[in-house]
Amino acid sequence: VSPTDFPRTADQRVYHLGLRAGDVANRIVTVGSPSRAQAIAAFFDKEIKPFVLSSERGFLTITGRFKNVPVSVISIGMGSANMDFFVREVRECLSGDMVIVRLGSCGALIDVPVGTVVVPRASVSVTRNVDFDFGSADSLESPYRISRPVGTVSGQRCLHSVNLAQVHADAALHDELQKALAIERPLGFEILTDTVNASADSFYSSQGRHTSFPDHNEHLIDKLQASTPGLVTLEMETFHLYHLAVCWRGRQAATRMSPLTERLVEPVISLPPASVFPTTSLQLASPETVIRAAAVHMVFASRTSQEFITPNQVTELERWT
Amino acid sequence: VSPTDFPRTADQRVYHLGLRAGDVANRIVTVGSPSRAQAIAAFFDKEIKPFVLSSERGFLTITGRFKNVPVSVISIGMGSANMDFFVREVRECLSGDMVIVRLGSCGALIDVPVGTVVVPRASVSVTRNVDFDFGSADSLESPYRISRPVGTVSGQRCLHSVNLAQVHADAALHDELQKALAIERPLGFEILTDTVNASADSFYSSQGRHTSFPDHNEHLIDKLQASTPGLVTLEMETFHLYHLAVCWRGRQAATRMSPLTERLVEPVISLPPASVFPTTSLQLASPETVIRAAAVHMVFASRTSQEFITPNQVTELERWT
Repeated sequence: VSPTDFPRTADQRVYHLGLRAGDVANRIVTVGSPSRAQAIAAFFDKEIKPFVLSSERGFLTITGRFKNVPVSVISIGMGSANMDFFVREVRECLSGDMVIVRLGSCGALIDVPVGTVVVPRASVSVTRNVDFDFGSADSLESPYRISRPVGTVSGQRCLHSVNLAQVHADAALHDELQKALAIERPLGFEILTDTVNASADSFYSSQGRHTSFPDHNEHLIDKLQASTPGLVTLEMETFHLYHLAVCWRGRQAATRMSPLTERLVEPVISLPPASVFPTTSLQLASPETVIRAAAVHMVFASRTSQEFITPNQVTELERWT
Repeated sequence: VSPTDFPRTADQRVYHLGLRAGDVANRIVTVGSPSRAQAIAAFFDKEIKPFVLSSERGFLTITGRFKNVPVSVISIGMGSANMDFFVREVRECLSGDMVIVRLGSCGALIDVPVGTVVVPRASVSVTRNVDFDFGSADSLESPYRISRPVGTVSGQRCLHSVNLAQVHADAALHDELQKALAIERPLGFEILTDTVNASADSFYSSQGRHTSFPDHNEHLIDKLQASTPGLVTLEMETFHLYHLAVCWRGRQAATRMSPLTERLVEPVISLPPASVFPTTSLQLASPETVIRAAAVHMVFASRTSQEFITPNQVTELERWT
């Protein structure tokens, strides 16, 4: 593995998140915005000051303890590319298993009230087919691609079933989240589980929204619903998280650790007392490790009733989840 | 157009960038990190205090004047999804033409020194084919998709030529950038123009880098070079900028302006004196408008020599461009 393959700074930090071994826990909650990360970190044990690192590229990591168990919350922004940076770079900072829970907002394609919480069992992806001619629409291609909801076995397509989904949550983690959310559920909020999510590569075009661009997406949502049984939520990150977790087969080969560049990341670090979360020496993941991923989606927009969430509802929802 | 199609805050701000009409100029330089945005804004006219808005979702906009012409510099983070948010949401804040120059770092696939500046004429995209079975590699699919370098005319494939590229820079803007860069070129730095760029959906897998995940990308760069004559640079954002600019056909239909949500964006705004950059009333783009886009790429990593840029070189390069 060459230095341009996996660049690190001279002090062994990954290039975009700015982390190194010891900065991040194996149990991670990932969110889209720094304020949501801080709202979650407010529940960390008060006895110890958390480790806080804000990278030049906009990633915020807060590592502390919850009921004495080390936990990190990492804000990654929006979209699959940021999810890719997060999963791959954190994987290179940790030995052992990873447990990742995504907490994010979403739109709902079925008639549920805003504020409903959804725990998706599986996900498909919806991406813009850039070979389609969006200007003239004179094209043999389809304007959007929907990933296969289920895998293939020896080239044969499986029956449609969320349990055979190609890209899915960790089953046990999904069930644990379901139970934990049910115990804490405030009056008037609902929980949906065992659903299918779709992750789009745009908040607009590939989610069927109409802006001033000629996106040719008038029939996209209908097509998506027809091809994806159990589909409830629409957002932008969960598919890639589930996909990478399912792809992981343990470390295939050791990554060479030579430093390559001066400290370009320039992270802003708030150091905790060294005794609290000691820097471990770098031990990379073995082939036996697993990545367990699941997601909790908060419905902010109903695409059937056109309802949009209010800030007070957001605050109440964040406190619960 | 329904409110869930294009959400705005009660005070008419777009939802993720936090801007509204009057906050942003028609001439925009877009970069990936806030520090680069600030480095560019340092060249703005000193007489007037710039408008600065940092959105909850990580977008930073600085609007001021350069030689008395209104200019915005907007930091958007990384990846196509963020480029999509930026182009679409800013488009809804502006009437008239848009001129967008992307300034970013890239890897080089040909043997040029790090610090070389490249102005790409066209771009292809490289995306992960999530229907490929990355776990077993037992799949009928190809693991990556490369977009067509050239368009089709009446279903017939055009000859390979950068001038017929399906997704390309604005020709005049490309040439103006080339001239401006040549005039200011410091000793020891090179400029390459009329090249082809590839934008990938990952810094790692779809750029042929090898991490601990089974990405099956051993032959990707060879395949990419074979299918894309003139290919020099590899990064993550320019394709989608060029693509949206080429797709734009003027506003197809008025976007309804009803406010939908309380002020959820919570941008941090540094207000300029009102006289400097007056808030205009919202006038949306007419069908006659165009979006002109081009890019300047700074080579940070050479994929042939394995060279990686140093911070001092970055500073010198940023001062020039």
